[in-house]
Amino acid sequence: MTLSTQPYKGARDFYPEDKRIQKYMFGVMRNVAERFGYEEYDAPILEPLEIFTAKTSDEIVGEQTYSFEDRGGRKVVIRPEMTPSVSRMVAGRRQELTYPLRWYSIPNLWRYERPQRGRLREHWQLNVDLFGIDGIEAEHEILLVADGIMQALGATKDMYTIKLNSRKLMNGLMRDYLQLDEAQAHKLSRLIDRMHKTDHAEFVDQVGAIFTPNQHEKGLDKALLSLLKTSNWDEVSLDASSSEALKKIKQLINMLETSGITNVVFDPTIMRGFDYYTDVVFEVFDNNPKNNRSMFGGGRYDGLVGLFGVKPVPTIGFGMGDVTLQNFLEDHGLIPEPNTETDIYAVLIGDVYDRAQNAISSLRGLGINVTVDSTGRKPEKQIRVALKKQVNYVLFIGESELNDGRFTLKNLYSGEEARYDIQKIASIVKDYKKT
Amino acid sequence: MTLSTQPYKGARDFYPEDKRIQKYMFGVMRNVAERFGYEEYDAPILEPLEIFTAKTSDEIVGEQTYSFEDRGGRKVVIRPEMTPSVSRMVAGRRQELTYPLRWYSIPNLWRYERPQRGRLREHWQLNVDLFGIDGIEAEHEILLVADGIMQALGATKDMYTIKLNSRKLMNGLMRDYLQLDEAQAHKLSRLIDRMHKTDHAEFVDQVGAIFTPNQHEKGLDKALLSLLKTSNWDEVSLDASSSEALKKIKQLINMLETSGITNVVFDPTIMRGFDYYTDVVFEVFDNNPKNNRSMFGGGRYDGLVGLFGVKPVPTIGFGMGDVTLQNFLEDHGLIPEPNTETDIYAVLIGDVYDRAQNAISSLRGLGINVTVDSTGRKPEKQIRVALKKQVNYVLFIGESELNDGRFTLKNLYSGEEARYDIQKIASIVKDYKKT
Repeated sequence: MTLSTQPYKGARDFYPEDKRIQKYMFGVMRNVAERFGYEEYDAPILEPLEIFTAKTSDEIVGEQTYSFEDRGGRKVVIRPEMTPSVSRMVAGRRQELTYPLRWYSIPNLWRYERPQRGRLREHWQLNVDLFGIDGIEAEHEILLVADGIMQALGATKDMYTIKLNSRKLMNGLMRDYLQLDEAQAHKLSRLIDRMHKTDHAEFVDQVGAIFTPNQHEKGLDKALLSLLKTSNWDEVSLDASSSEALKKIKQLINMLETSGITNVVFDPTIMRGFDYYTDVVFEVFDNNPKNNRSMFGGGRYDGLVGLFGVKPVPTIGFGMGDVTLQNFLEDHGLIPEPNTETDIYAVLIGDVYDRAQNAISSLRGLGINVTVDSTGRKPEKQIRVALKKQVNYVLFIGESELNDGRFTLKNLYSGEEARYDIQKIASIVKDYKKT
Repeated sequence: MTLSTQPYKGARDFYPEDKRIQKYMFGVMRNVAERFGYEEYDAPILEPLEIFTAKTSDEIVGEQTYSFEDRGGRKVVIRPEMTPSVSRMVAGRRQELTYPLRWYSIPNLWRYERPQRGRLREHWQLNVDLFGIDGIEAEHEILLVADGIMQALGATKDMYTIKLNSRKLMNGLMRDYLQLDEAQAHKLSRLIDRMHKTDHAEFVDQVGAIFTPNQHEKGLDKALLSLLKTSNWDEVSLDASSSEALKKIKQLINMLETSGITNVVFDPTIMRGFDYYTDVVFEVFDNNPKNNRSMFGGGRYDGLVGLFGVKPVPTIGFGMGDVTLQNFLEDHGLIPEPNTETDIYAVLIGDVYDRAQNAISSLRGLGINVTVDSTGRKPEKQIRVALKKQVNYVLFIGESELNDGRFTLKNLYSGEEARYDIQKIASIVKDYKKT
């Protein structure tokens, strides 16, 4: 039987040129997160199923997880998201950890769904979380980090919009203003969450179906629909808690604008799919009219750590997936030209593999990345391979060079070549790497 | 219900202090691999089961895999090793890739087994593979890389031994010298592979059981046992193929010794567990008498790429697991003191969070990693947290500092403190980072 060379459906092979792009993105994420004092952590990709059934959405746990029984009969799942794992870890050392706690991770996550643009079965997702601050400073900082990554990747403010909302505000509205019970409110949240992916007429129908005849008569479904598009929230009569939540959103927008983040708006249609959010939620949208959709988001989830039997910790965080992000960077021409890590391609002339070892090992000792062509092919063929691998320098090593202790270094792009000793070769290549 | 805070059995949570050690080890691995011109790749953690049933050992596939059916009825497995995946990827682009191909990856791998010291259900494993060279230069280079990583981690030659053997030699011996058929040879390989973990008397019994009465009479089982401990291989009468295989091992040892690797020996008991090895195999042993065991290994597997319906590629590689390696580094005192990535802990005095943003953002813009204490606690408490988080500098930001544009920077370890502007603070901290 011949085996297929295809990767599992909805998952990706990363050939070196693909891996370089991923490493570039992850490198920027790490730099920015650490610039704000966040520390990297990690957790196993397999988790007990129960930590997801608690507060991740029903759709994900019931239909989209890779869950199974292990050989010992334990129900396990390949994690579909990282938030329950990080909450578990914080809860596990609730007392010993020093707050505020700033943590980040770039886990590999899996969901069983139909692969499509921007959504695969497997992806990687930066998770940034701030534990222990209940004030608005936490919201402000976490959005600075999210925006900082976008900026560091070369995105400009016109390319994306940060949309804010508040679960507290929406819960208050649904309870007091729209008079919905909990089940109705939960259903409505789901509908609003999918609103931008749903045809508008269909959305109106679905919303209508949630309200009782009595609520219809009072015009509450119409009230909702107009709320979702009003720009004049001052005229909406809010209960105290909702009013406070809205004030917080406005204050946050002010703080962000003062920090130079002007591409931020309040948008009551932002709900986020997870059940664990408790207050501010946000999503970052691609402004590209051809691809105007949410790229990533996050929010406050003050209750999740407490599910593990310890005192709750106020928490806010976000998750930024690599697939959507890479699509965005590609569409906006923001992927930099990837460079090979190899500095020198050593071309061996004749049967000199053994004798060439000293020179090669000295170069490596001086911090130079050297590939040796040990195939015994003709030098012309070796140079062609160096070009194909986009290595900048070839170094010729043959009998005469070895006897002389000086080797010809050729810059394949400028065509320059000259003969130097090993120290000089290392310093030329290092200077070139700096430019 | 209260959820458990424990990770899944046999898997690890990486709190930031654990993750730093892992990042240190992986960083060294990456540096050395790239020093030799290897490029990083990656593949999905889920693979079709069939690519492992072909040539991974029966024990692993039948008893130790995390395999299950996905929601579409496909048989999948969380990879127990990386070699089939990388072979699949090379086969998938057999024609387009440029040889020799030097690839490395640090995948996460899973095996269902009883967790014990040095062996968990989950681990990470550096995989380094060289495709396209059938000459001994490939064996030499791959061992230089393996040894280079040990050296770069601070290990000295007296701490570990590289043991070499050849599957070709052993297959020839079992076929011609011991007159075993294929099934007997396969069983014997397995026994020899586990020999060092088995009581000697038991091993002798198990070996005895493989030979037929007729073979016993000829003394072939005794011949095997004495072969496994002989130091005088020149007296063993070998067929042509075995003799050539032994010569290759001796030549390789010479080449390695010339390259300064003197802690290398021939050991006919080294078999390696996988069925796909075809020629030279090796294992690196910890010399610590309390823990004298194999840490990692590899070998040549020229046939695996060909299983995917393309022309085979000569290949040699090794896998180096993080659990055993970390145990080794700990035992030998080779884990360096981990440092936090945070440079400055900003202590806010009074209600200055908003006004402090400019100074903090300027420092970050200058490349300094700054954590802000936005809790509003007393400065003394904030300093205690900075100490606990082992940040070297605290920066005091209060009304008077903000009016002045100059801030007090304190080195928590030396006790030195003075007031500077932002530029000067950044340059002091950068100088400190260099030391």
